[in-house]
Amino acid sequence: MTERILIKNLSALEDGPVRVAGWVETVRDQKKVQFIVLRDETGSVQLVNPATRELNDEDADSATKLEITEAISGLAQGSFVSIEGDLKHDERVKLGGIEIKIRSLTIASEAIPETPIASDSSSDKRMDWRFLDLRRPEQNLVFRIQTTFEHALRTYWIEHDFIEVHTPKLMASPSESRAELFELEYFDTKAYLAQSPQFFKQMAQSAGFGAIFEIAPAFRADPSFTSRHATEFTSVDAEISWVDSHEDVMKLHEELLVAGFTAVKEKHGAAIKELFDIDLEVPTVPFPRIPLAEAKQIVADRGYEIPRADADMDPEGERQIAAYVKETYGHDFVFLTDYASSIRPFYHMRHADNPELTNSYDLIYNGVEISTGAQREHRIDILIEQAKDKGMEPEELDFYLDFFRYGVPTHGGFGMGLARVLMLMLHQQSIREVTYLFRSPTRLMP
Amino acid sequence: MTERILIKNLSALEDGPVRVAGWVETVRDQKKVQFIVLRDETGSVQLVNPATRELNDEDADSATKLEITEAISGLAQGSFVSIEGDLKHDERVKLGGIEIKIRSLTIASEAIPETPIASDSSSDKRMDWRFLDLRRPEQNLVFRIQTTFEHALRTYWIEHDFIEVHTPKLMASPSESRAELFELEYFDTKAYLAQSPQFFKQMAQSAGFGAIFEIAPAFRADPSFTSRHATEFTSVDAEISWVDSHEDVMKLHEELLVAGFTAVKEKHGAAIKELFDIDLEVPTVPFPRIPLAEAKQIVADRGYEIPRADADMDPEGERQIAAYVKETYGHDFVFLTDYASSIRPFYHMRHADNPELTNSYDLIYNGVEISTGAQREHRIDILIEQAKDKGMEPEELDFYLDFFRYGVPTHGGFGMGLARVLMLMLHQQSIREVTYLFRSPTRLMP
Repeated sequence: MTERILIKNLSALEDGPVRVAGWVETVRDQKKVQFIVLRDETGSVQLVNPATRELNDEDADSATKLEITEAISGLAQGSFVSIEGDLKHDERVKLGGIEIKIRSLTIASEAIPETPIASDSSSDKRMDWRFLDLRRPEQNLVFRIQTTFEHALRTYWIEHDFIEVHTPKLMASPSESRAELFELEYFDTKAYLAQSPQFFKQMAQSAGFGAIFEIAPAFRADPSFTSRHATEFTSVDAEISWVDSHEDVMKLHEELLVAGFTAVKEKHGAAIKELFDIDLEVPTVPFPRIPLAEAKQIVADRGYEIPRADADMDPEGERQIAAYVKETYGHDFVFLTDYASSIRPFYHMRHADNPELTNSYDLIYNGVEISTGAQREHRIDILIEQAKDKGMEPEELDFYLDFFRYGVPTHGGFGMGLARVLMLMLHQQSIREVTYLFRSPTRLMP
Repeated sequence: MTERILIKNLSALEDGPVRVAGWVETVRDQKKVQFIVLRDETGSVQLVNPATRELNDEDADSATKLEITEAISGLAQGSFVSIEGDLKHDERVKLGGIEIKIRSLTIASEAIPETPIASDSSSDKRMDWRFLDLRRPEQNLVFRIQTTFEHALRTYWIEHDFIEVHTPKLMASPSESRAELFELEYFDTKAYLAQSPQFFKQMAQSAGFGAIFEIAPAFRADPSFTSRHATEFTSVDAEISWVDSHEDVMKLHEELLVAGFTAVKEKHGAAIKELFDIDLEVPTVPFPRIPLAEAKQIVADRGYEIPRADADMDPEGERQIAAYVKETYGHDFVFLTDYASSIRPFYHMRHADNPELTNSYDLIYNGVEISTGAQREHRIDILIEQAKDKGMEPEELDFYLDFFRYGVPTHGGFGMGLARVLMLMLHQQSIREVTYLFRSPTRLMP
């Protein structure tokens, strides 16, 4: 291993010999002195080299010095190098008050001199060169935040005795609907890519697993091009036994988000402020809960008429209700509850006293839906009726219905789009900005 | 939420009212007294009910009592129920020395009386009814172990500043080879399912991420039916910058496994002993390392001639070298190193002084390969030569080669099959036994 010091740790060191490694951000090649700004995954530092432009018989090291000088003169931005040198604290140096005087330089790989993107390149162009785009400190931070956020969720789950499952992404039948489904040749038959882990999360309930979680890819052959949709996305899923209603699921959900936001704020709050100019707030619990019918009335009273024939909210309606919640409760999150049965999947449990409504919710964060949760219908007879009600063929669902025929506890859960949470947390325009490699109908590369 | 007490926590409680919930394992319906063994995800407990077989005018509660008695008489094995009752410690009760006298019983869902599998059912039949198979305590433990193991790996990575990535599973070109590739219609073009995250793990190196990890599904259209292969499997992947050789990767790999095994032994050691009769050992570091050529000589000296035309080990050879390592070093793991270039992918770095060999390894655990790791070739010219050498078209790899054209540090990593580790840890015959839902050429259901 090249035993390097991470650049963020340099300033705490005393003056002396160090080794750093990273990529070249800039080279200033002056006649008498050369400067490199070197970046690694933790920060950037200035390297300095007194230029030796010709051999000097009186200096035994002049050949080496000339070699280093010429190597620096030829260094393209982006090249990866490892440097040995002497660290010196110097208040005059703008970049962190430290500088490293180069003693030796090893080039791991040289970059093509012309960088194909700049900070003002279009989103599409940056996606074409995503690996270069990801070198920006803001992008590096996004994925550190993602890492911390996920680990905090998983730690919460582990502490609450959840079991992690890896549900299959190859299925013999659609998991949600025949729309937006990827189909593939599978030996002598056909398979479908899982649109969600829904059925298999529920299977864990019948298996007596109690409480389970999964963070994994899900696939939707969605032809739309919005800032919120991708054909492949990372779905954060949990499902728990013995719920009395969707209220139990919401309670889990908000506690999890508090755990995630707390960890992110603690570890990255200062960096988020510096790079995104955002004061990240940890939400308070309970999050506000508003029945959808009431939310629609509130939005209507604000003068916005939702232009939809079905009973659902639209994106502008979600922004409006979020604005109302922010004004009224000072909260960035709101659970919209009790969606109409007509716009919910067959497996959502309906109200005991009103089959027009479901024990379900959407979670809205900064005006955008990030999640859907519900209590599931666990009574086989009612489940079959609800499936028929939606025009589904119970025969096609038989393997799923079996989970209920052999006993299952009451249960519920949610699925949440990871990239949406990050997009909204960091006030980004699109999930593309917070997805490692975005996939859309026209984007399969790199 | 049904506020239940987990069965494992009952014995620590004092006598008194409790609520438990789970599924019915057995019912003994005697004339005067009824017994239920109830199981939840943590254990099983005996419930008792003095039978009331007819109404009694002198007992105001006799109608309720009769109702409970008749409900128990009709309870099918597998039904999920919630019970209120009185806990009593009683040494005479074989099952944990405790018993709960039933006060009320709520049936969440009744099971079909005939259970389609028994403990001696064939593996295939048990896979058909996996959700019932998973109710066995051994199976529940498998997935608790998996949960603990993965969390320990991730905690190690987090503590060492790794970034978690979610690489896309939809690709425009094969990630490993054209063999064993799933192809799907993707809008107006074709996409392939990722056989490994290889290219995108390497992209993170060029992106300056330093050290990254991912645990995610991978897909191989592998027509074989062995105990070690599946068409979809969970791949544990890591990739790190600035390695000097594959030795650096092996060092990470063994430290990670020690972290995982330590956590599993600590949390589940006693249960593994009880249910699998295995004394789990945490491996010591360093794991033995044997160059492949030497390993083949050792195996040959033991009298086993590897019947392969290429330079590779075969499964029996792996068992033989593992037996040798166990006898010689008392170790369950061995790194076989420096595989021939002819049997390694083009992206493995070759020895500087001998291009016939690579900076690579396989990790063998209890006689079976669980992982392949390597230093990657990061020098673009050599990488292109090696790709041509393997008969590949550099044009097809262009998006991948770009990662190297704009600078990349030296790097290496490994991919490890999660189910193989669990199979070998728990001395199971097949990865099917430790996979939530197994996928093979003939199995897409449930």
